[in-house]
Amino acid sequence: MAVTLELSLLLAQLETLGAIGAEGPGRGRTRIALTDAEKAGRDQLVVWMRELDLIVEVDQLGNIFGSLPAATEQGDREPLMIGSHIDTVRSAGALDGCYGVLAGLAVLRAFRAAGIAPARRLVVAAFTNEEGVRYQPDMMGSLVYAGGLAIDDALASRGTDGSRLGDELARIGYAGDAPCGFLTPWAFLELHIEQGPVLEAAGARLGVVRGVQGISWQRITLKGEANHAGTAPMAFRHDAGYGAAATVAFLREQITKAAPGTTLATVGSLTLAPDVINVVPEQATFTVDLRDPDEAQLAAAEAKLDHFLDALAKAEGLTVHTEQLVRFSPVAFHAGLRKRIRAAAEASGEAPLELTSGAGHDAQMMARIAPSAMIFVPSIKGISHNPEEATDPADLALGAEVLLRVVEDCLAVPLGEAP
Amino acid sequence: MAVTLELSLLLAQLETLGAIGAEGPGRGRTRIALTDAEKAGRDQLVVWMRELDLIVEVDQLGNIFGSLPAATEQGDREPLMIGSHIDTVRSAGALDGCYGVLAGLAVLRAFRAAGIAPARRLVVAAFTNEEGVRYQPDMMGSLVYAGGLAIDDALASRGTDGSRLGDELARIGYAGDAPCGFLTPWAFLELHIEQGPVLEAAGARLGVVRGVQGISWQRITLKGEANHAGTAPMAFRHDAGYGAAATVAFLREQITKAAPGTTLATVGSLTLAPDVINVVPEQATFTVDLRDPDEAQLAAAEAKLDHFLDALAKAEGLTVHTEQLVRFSPVAFHAGLRKRIRAAAEASGEAPLELTSGAGHDAQMMARIAPSAMIFVPSIKGISHNPEEATDPADLALGAEVLLRVVEDCLAVPLGEAP
Repeated sequence: MAVTLELSLLLAQLETLGAIGAEGPGRGRTRIALTDAEKAGRDQLVVWMRELDLIVEVDQLGNIFGSLPAATEQGDREPLMIGSHIDTVRSAGALDGCYGVLAGLAVLRAFRAAGIAPARRLVVAAFTNEEGVRYQPDMMGSLVYAGGLAIDDALASRGTDGSRLGDELARIGYAGDAPCGFLTPWAFLELHIEQGPVLEAAGARLGVVRGVQGISWQRITLKGEANHAGTAPMAFRHDAGYGAAATVAFLREQITKAAPGTTLATVGSLTLAPDVINVVPEQATFTVDLRDPDEAQLAAAEAKLDHFLDALAKAEGLTVHTEQLVRFSPVAFHAGLRKRIRAAAEASGEAPLELTSGAGHDAQMMARIAPSAMIFVPSIKGISHNPEEATDPADLALGAEVLLRVVEDCLAVPLGEAP
Repeated sequence: MAVTLELSLLLAQLETLGAIGAEGPGRGRTRIALTDAEKAGRDQLVVWMRELDLIVEVDQLGNIFGSLPAATEQGDREPLMIGSHIDTVRSAGALDGCYGVLAGLAVLRAFRAAGIAPARRLVVAAFTNEEGVRYQPDMMGSLVYAGGLAIDDALASRGTDGSRLGDELARIGYAGDAPCGFLTPWAFLELHIEQGPVLEAAGARLGVVRGVQGISWQRITLKGEANHAGTAPMAFRHDAGYGAAATVAFLREQITKAAPGTTLATVGSLTLAPDVINVVPEQATFTVDLRDPDEAQLAAAEAKLDHFLDALAKAEGLTVHTEQLVRFSPVAFHAGLRKRIRAAAEASGEAPLELTSGAGHDAQMMARIAPSAMIFVPSIKGISHNPEEATDPADLALGAEVLLRVVEDCLAVPLGEAP
């Protein structure tokens, strides 16, 4: 019996999961990690895993794994893992993360339906707190699973609401027994929406992800001197707000326009104090999000920003305090798996586009412990983290089909051999 | 009997009034217009006025007037008014406004003590809501008194706390009967701390104020498009935060550095939305405070800003909404009164400095209906609107002495003649 996907059930499950935490018609859904709404999403996923009679395991950080055992003991020791996450940002779309988890579930369902015990154990993983809205850092579940952060440190994390992650995990009933990292994947695959405009702009329906950009998050505080807007001559001022504005302009003009032009720079958050119309700002606090697919370029951007801030502080009589919030080096995905994805896409009649992921993903953490790769489908208008996030259902179907082909291709690799 | 000031009582009253609304040692005082703390300040002032047996009158906007009648009926019809305000900003110093009111009271006390009925009625005025913290615009009491804003509009003002000004005025018991403008001054004098560094830097102990800068307050809202900081290519962005930063930089580089270099520009308040580290800002709302002693320069700065915003909107794909919050043309004080102030200062052995006021003052509103002028004393380090606001007590005494000399000089002008 051939292995085939029940595509209509995949789309129905995306809709059912997307209705959990929904805020009303056209308004998105909010399932922030370890809240009651997110617990409801987890419960639904576990129900679906049990319906397929998968082995359901939860690790100490609440990462959920549903496994279809292999035909042999050795096949169980070389599992092929498919994963992503089901937590969301505030007022999110229905696809981010959920698409990868539920497409993985659709692949396992196809094997169940065909009555085939696969050559390698097939595992669907849903990682805890990928979004990092409430607890930092983001991609926490896969980071801890891959050994990049100690479980105790993760459990001790304080949320934006003051809560302790471990307490909330226990409260919602997902503090499991399995040690993080208890299954070492032979390979890890993640199917995801692009969340950007590149595939759509290129007219491609499928992306083979080269890797994930490096990311540097800093919080910068400039301190100057409050003064009367009407009486302080310009030359006497130590204007922290001007310092922040000059930095934003520098990032745009000098960092993102520098060759080779791959660096992205964003100041998303900025606050002035005392924030009064006729008072020269004493303090400006702002964030800098720098990304680049190349580590040397990312480090160069950071160094240029440091030098700029030093010179600015001297010229304007400001003090600078910089705090590094997040720093991940760029990740390159596994060449062999990328080749398999390209071949599977071409077998489906598509010319896939190679692209770098701008957003972070669980696969970049799993790449620390296993050959890993990602498949992208287009996001309409590049919109994501927004109720308007959408992908053509035909593209969602194509992505799941290609994932199934890659899984079949991987299962054909003899046990004991690398992907 | 000579007319002499009781300087120690003036300093003691400044301290007593400064203790009302105090927030603790070294922490300033808060008597925002029409709050309970400000009512307590008013009550203290009225007690002091009654101790001098002045005629106390309160007008419909709560402006308080204490009058020492003239020797003749005609002298009562040509009153010499000395005034300022006793409301404060948040965490204010003890001198701003209060010094002018209490020095005026000291002058009237000197005439009372000497048993002299002055040739012109002497009036001390304390105007409502000069600071404009809770209700806009600032300098409201003198503006309405001078006919620049209708009393009903002022009473209908909504505060930052949602309160109606007229209700709060009645609540604290200062909704008086006298029509605003019921006394037309023959001349108006205001003694004030400089609130800037100019006198101190020049080593001058006294300032003759040429006039008050024109002031333009705008609130500008830029709208762009929220987007993912990791996936939106720089060229695809419509970054409202960058637009705001570019405007701040433009104001500094192109407006304040343009000849003749008299324009001041301040962006004191700036808010981004959604204000999240990894989201390109969809909206930026910020204020622009422009000031210049010359109306043509001020208007030119406004026009340049308009053109810049138009070009920015086109280049960045943003929309611009501009709201004018306050607009006052520059005011030149009365040449004759300025000459009398200079002469009085020189008679006290001082070489006064001519300077323009950067801050707005009640005298600029009173200049609409009467010959008006201002005397400045130095602010240590130019600090004001701050608990550290201070002036050397010897300079406070000198200012009051010069005020008394100017009053005596004015009283010597024959009734029916202009100042």
